[in-house]
Amino acid sequence: MTGNCHHPLDEAVALRVLTGAAQAARRYAGQTHAGYANMIGPYGGVTAAQALAAVMAHPGRLGEPIAFTGNYATALADGQFEIEAEPVRTNRSTQHWVVRISQTGADGAPATVFTATVVTALRRSTWRAHDIPMPADLPAPESVPGNLHVRRTLDQALSRGLPPDAGSNSASEALSAPRVPWLARYDIRPIAGRIPSQWDGSEADDSQTLQWMRDEPPRPLDFISLTALADTFFPRVWLRRARHTPIGTVSITIYYHAQAGDLAAAGADYLLGQAHGLSYFNGFFDQSALLWSRAGNLLVTTHQIVYFKE
Amino acid sequence: MTGNCHHPLDEAVALRVLTGAAQAARRYAGQTHAGYANMIGPYGGVTAAQALAAVMAHPGRLGEPIAFTGNYATALADGQFEIEAEPVRTNRSTQHWVVRISQTGADGAPATVFTATVVTALRRSTWRAHDIPMPADLPAPESVPGNLHVRRTLDQALSRGLPPDAGSNSASEALSAPRVPWLARYDIRPIAGRIPSQWDGSEADDSQTLQWMRDEPPRPLDFISLTALADTFFPRVWLRRARHTPIGTVSITIYYHAQAGDLAAAGADYLLGQAHGLSYFNGFFDQSALLWSRAGNLLVTTHQIVYFKE
Repeated sequence: MTGNCHHPLDEAVALRVLTGAAQAARRYAGQTHAGYANMIGPYGGVTAAQALAAVMAHPGRLGEPIAFTGNYATALADGQFEIEAEPVRTNRSTQHWVVRISQTGADGAPATVFTATVVTALRRSTWRAHDIPMPADLPAPESVPGNLHVRRTLDQALSRGLPPDAGSNSASEALSAPRVPWLARYDIRPIAGRIPSQWDGSEADDSQTLQWMRDEPPRPLDFISLTALADTFFPRVWLRRARHTPIGTVSITIYYHAQAGDLAAAGADYLLGQAHGLSYFNGFFDQSALLWSRAGNLLVTTHQIVYFKE
Repeated sequence: MTGNCHHPLDEAVALRVLTGAAQAARRYAGQTHAGYANMIGPYGGVTAAQALAAVMAHPGRLGEPIAFTGNYATALADGQFEIEAEPVRTNRSTQHWVVRISQTGADGAPATVFTATVVTALRRSTWRAHDIPMPADLPAPESVPGNLHVRRTLDQALSRGLPPDAGSNSASEALSAPRVPWLARYDIRPIAGRIPSQWDGSEADDSQTLQWMRDEPPRPLDFISLTALADTFFPRVWLRRARHTPIGTVSITIYYHAQAGDLAAAGADYLLGQAHGLSYFNGFFDQSALLWSRAGNLLVTTHQIVYFKE
């Protein structure tokens, strides 16, 4: 990450080692970053990236990320947190991690605010294929209008979309703009499935979004930024219903289908993202997404389940 | 589960409480079940079901399962294991769990063999929809030939498909039938995307399977059996390549889109399962699947990433 030490994402994932030997659980201190703030607590993608950064920095790590699942137990408070990254099992070619982020609660005791499990592995060259083709005949990202409309609309929508157990809706509506700083950290160029411009409750037939996307300012891709990018899709329930229901991601899973060299080849260029919803049922819906490099490599498949209020 | 106390699945998920108060981490003793044995270690779906059973049995549990992620750190040894289920965060309507299964290693110390995170929640009635329609015009399960061919072919294939870090391939081939007991615990009736009958290495155009499926013998559906059923799809890489490469699930995620009453309504009838692959890249591929009740309720969406040898 030479030359990126001042990128906001690198500031956000900077961790200080507190304790831990090369093979043991390691504790780190970190802090939330104002540039990635959401309405309440941080943007979920950057919390996931911080958890992965703790694994990537561990001297006992074996190989590269294969699978990541992060669970948002509550909104992080602005300020300091601790991450514990524990390699619970190291095999010949795979390694399993349990990660916890904690903050000191009102009672002075540490409380868990986020959990994750991570699998890393040494890869070998094998047969390769994709079953989901990258959409063809797309406009170049340079020719697609940027996300100023998206950003403005998301800012308004997120200001009403609070995570569960995070406080009352009316409180947030009293806050003034810019309410959702993290939106300025991504350059998102929607091709199809734009966020509704009319919140008129008209139900859409599908929930698919296709978009070019990258860090803002641009930053060479690595596993940490790819993890944060996996959470940039606005909630499918908003697209499907054109209605401002409060939402909050509960759990996200990311499968990595690339090695460090593939990410370096993608560089700081746009990725193509495609997302769709699956089921919306009594307070929770799920969405799946794929991220390709501009050259057509499927880098990530990702799934999440999201609370929605009504 | 009245009347099911002798079902093999109920025997397999029977746990004995070792320690733990109502709000604290709780430790249970369990043991592998010969009826759900795989080539090496148990069928992964039943290990996931055992981990969920520990959460379901915890007196401090809030609500019903929303999300489950289980990670297969190594093949369980036949015999006893311990499960620790810890409610790491309890909110007003959601609860977050970390689960570990451990066994005593060769050095006499407990070693982690499986990890999971689980989210449970109190649900409220909201808007509902599915974005993926249940396939229409299907033959009734009663009219679809059973899985004797599937079972025989899977038995042969699994005998060559070993999980990573589990031993040499040639050793397994010396074992005699019935090599994969768990296959007899499911009644699977493939409609499309059958397991290859010729392992001739001919690559298929897609990796989709459609099948009716239920416990064998039939058992009224609950969250525990639904969790085990989510792992019954044979690996997509075999369908795609018609080749016996050794495989092993590394991580599985399950999102539940039903409440206990919906599962009770599905009863002991067949579920419809639809699975497809996404990416196959340097030793790991992922697959996604949906499970509907026969009446057309989408009960589960599930994703997993799987090691494959070559």
